[in-house]
Amino acid sequence: MSNVEVKPVKVDDNALSILFRNARTQNGWLDKPVAVDLLHEVYELFKFGPTSANSSPGRIVFLTTDEARARLLPSLSPQNVEKTRTAPVVAIVAYDIEFYEKLPKLFPHADARSWFASNEALAQETAFRNSTLQGAYFMLAARALGLDCGPMSGFDPAKVNAEFFPEGKWKVNFICNLGYGDETKLFPRSPRLDFDEACVVL
Amino acid sequence: MSNVEVKPVKVDDNALSILFRNARTQNGWLDKPVAVDLLHEVYELFKFGPTSANSSPGRIVFLTTDEARARLLPSLSPQNVEKTRTAPVVAIVAYDIEFYEKLPKLFPHADARSWFASNEALAQETAFRNSTLQGAYFMLAARALGLDCGPMSGFDPAKVNAEFFPEGKWKVNFICNLGYGDETKLFPRSPRLDFDEACVVL
Repeated sequence: MSNVEVKPVKVDDNALSILFRNARTQNGWLDKPVAVDLLHEVYELFKFGPTSANSSPGRIVFLTTDEARARLLPSLSPQNVEKTRTAPVVAIVAYDIEFYEKLPKLFPHADARSWFASNEALAQETAFRNSTLQGAYFMLAARALGLDCGPMSGFDPAKVNAEFFPEGKWKVNFICNLGYGDETKLFPRSPRLDFDEACVVL
Repeated sequence: MSNVEVKPVKVDDNALSILFRNARTQNGWLDKPVAVDLLHEVYELFKFGPTSANSSPGRIVFLTTDEARARLLPSLSPQNVEKTRTAPVVAIVAYDIEFYEKLPKLFPHADARSWFASNEALAQETAFRNSTLQGAYFMLAARALGLDCGPMSGFDPAKVNAEFFPEGKWKVNFICNLGYGDETKLFPRSPRLDFDEACVVL
């Protein structure tokens, strides 16, 4: 017998519902603000998600004011304007095409900077793949802390980049509204593929 | 007063540790099998993660036998061979370049098939971005159910595609070992970027 507390190695059923089963892409928002402190808490979780060579190329611009959101609205597809205008926070999930400049800090045990600095195609693919992984970690961390998400790719990336990243170092990947969802604005959940349509066991 | 049980809207601290704070990319595995039933459970969670137009382009080939894993080993970078050979399950996270053929089922309220069938660049970008999101949902769902992950991009994608997807419809995105990690094989955790290096609040 031991009196060391053994923590469960699985999350509980309620967490599975919050993260996956009951979580929905929101189309409308309750009038309830999201504190900037909470965005920091979300970051302090999702930063731990794995990326290739710990490259961590994801960057996020959080739009928290009417003024900041107004800069984004002209870049959006029409059906995305109203839900983004009214979202407490809008996250522009982006990547840094020069992410490898941080590798001497992030991956100190090898010269990982040179793997990417000398190979633009590898750097671009790594930035896109890994910032996308980080975008998913970000959304699940936000849900874990009680927020709802509304991700979208219906926007003009060239316009977003010109407005927010004119220096050309960061590039938008996708956009995600954040807040507390108005469940009356939800669409019915769409079907998913069956296991056998999406997976093969060899 | 009401006797309706109100469930917490946030996950508990232990779940945050399992998903993010304590989860590590594993380099070695305990001799403990992973049941195929558990892979189904993981799928039944991660399938709910959001994708663009519910397109769900992600596909996974689970390698569960020595024979199946042996087909992958020649495609791997040398440092990835031993940990993959000994992993209870290896997941080839892939995407279906003709994912849009499933959209009449997945997105029945609009002719979303035509948006992608007529635009190869959009289809390719959507498949890559959204299968990557699904790859992240997959890893976090696996962790939520007590599994450890070992994702990697150190392999030759052309060789993997030739071996597993010769018909050319599915393409590998990344590879992820699954099992119960041998913590004695862990490297020390590498640093992450500070909030202000990765995020901007406007």
